[in-house]
Amino acid sequence: MSQFTLVIGNKNYSSWSLRPWLLMKQFGIEFNEICIPLYQPETQSKLSQYSPSGKVPVLIHEKQTIWDSLAICEYLVETFPNLNLYPQDKNARALARSINAEMHSGFQHLRQNMPMNCCAVLPGKGMTPDVQKDIERITNIWRQLREQFSKEGNMLFGKFTIADAMYAPVILRFKTYGVQLNSICQDYSEAVLELPGMQQWLEAAKNEQETIPAFELGDNHPRPI
Amino acid sequence: MSQFTLVIGNKNYSSWSLRPWLLMKQFGIEFNEICIPLYQPETQSKLSQYSPSGKVPVLIHEKQTIWDSLAICEYLVETFPNLNLYPQDKNARALARSINAEMHSGFQHLRQNMPMNCCAVLPGKGMTPDVQKDIERITNIWRQLREQFSKEGNMLFGKFTIADAMYAPVILRFKTYGVQLNSICQDYSEAVLELPGMQQWLEAAKNEQETIPAFELGDNHPRPI
Ligand SMILES: N[C@@H](CCC(=O)N[C@@H](CS)C(=O)NCC(=O)O)C(=O)O
Ligand SMILES: N[C@@H](CCC(=O)N[C@@H](CS)C(=O)NCC(=O)O)C(=O)O
Repeated sequence: MSQFTLVIGNKNYSSWSLRPWLLMKQFGIEFNEICIPLYQPETQSKLSQYSPSGKVPVLIHEKQTIWDSLAICEYLVETFPNLNLYPQDKNARALARSINAEMHSGFQHLRQNMPMNCCAVLPGKGMTPDVQKDIERITNIWRQLREQFSKEGNMLFGKFTIADAMYAPVILRFKTYGVQLNSICQDYSEAVLELPGMQQWLEAAKNEQETIPAFELGDNHPRPI
Repeated sequence: MSQFTLVIGNKNYSSWSLRPWLLMKQFGIEFNEICIPLYQPETQSKLSQYSPSGKVPVLIHEKQTIWDSLAICEYLVETFPNLNLYPQDKNARALARSINAEMHSGFQHLRQNMPMNCCAVLPGKGMTPDVQKDIERITNIWRQLREQFSKEGNMLFGKFTIADAMYAPVILRFKTYGVQLNSICQDYSEAVLELPGMQQWLEAAKNEQETIPAFELGDNHPRPI
């Protein structure tokens, strides 16, 4: 038994769950995993056993419950100060936190219209002018960081950090919906998709049984995921 | 000249700007203030001078630009480790980060239907069943924390922390739209409204000239603020 338990949703659909899961896998932080399939009749009662917000992901560590993907990442930063989950340089870290918080609170159009669905291939679905603006902002962020940190590795800040984990679900959305990227962003996306943690997540997503009809259409749907 | 510059929007409307502004005022961190009135013809070009995301708030410190209210708060935590901007206890801090991240990424219905408008009195406007659910979740968070930390002071974690700054705009929304609160939440809201920083913000909001028609109606409007 590890000292950490991470409660997540379906790997195929739960974009927010992927973030801390990928972070912990890539940094070798061991955890027990509890998966709660979303939007089933028993989902709400199962979620409420673990999650004060009624949402996943949730991290449980020594009787402390931490909910919300970004808060979990910050908790792990505090718990493992030597792992460098964020860039070591203070200014780079400020940049990483800026793009993370921007991701966390924004890009509603993309979330709403291109729900995460790892296994699906839905090129062109969900594109609107507002989604296009979200994509432009995201790819601008990636391009600038990749230009700035290219010497240090192939992730946003050179080495893999929380920032890559925060943007990983978007990479899966772009893949599902066939979003065309410039070569810098394409290279970056491919590098993330090749991470062992991502490969493991995608493999597990393929083996899941549940489908959630609202997320299979690529059309408008009631809640972003 | 202080070493910090905070770029914000209109005090009457800019909910996200209030967070770092209030935090810095309450902790006596001095800063120069640049105010950019939102939704005017020249707004976008002014914003783009300072803000990579095209949004406020933005903090500038020693050539480093930090954008997004939550990232600014975390940057200040790092910069002033002795000020205790977060609760000192690790578990309380994990709780604070959980509710902050939940606020940062959620409560879309409340944001959309009850835009911040400090000076207006619009009781009953904007209420929908989904807004009601957001309000219930927020007041549950407040009630639980106030019960847990009541001995240590009258803020969410006893003393004033980032968590209170993150929820301060919601308190102004509840005031504008006349949201009825139970006595614990009412007492908490009043305590926040009485903070010197809040009084100063409200006083300045009253003296602003600009009105933004879309936010004066209390009805649906194009973008949450
Ligand atoms: N801001 C939260 C969002 C979490 C969230 O919306 N999770 C979705 C699944 S990806 C969920 O639990 N949905 C269940 C529900 O809303 O009933 C985070 O980052 O953890
Ligand atoms: N997540 C951002 C949101 C910032 C935001 O949406 N700011 C609004 C004003 S409160 C803005 O700058 N709007 C201008 C625009 O969208 O053109 C933060 O917390 O700082």
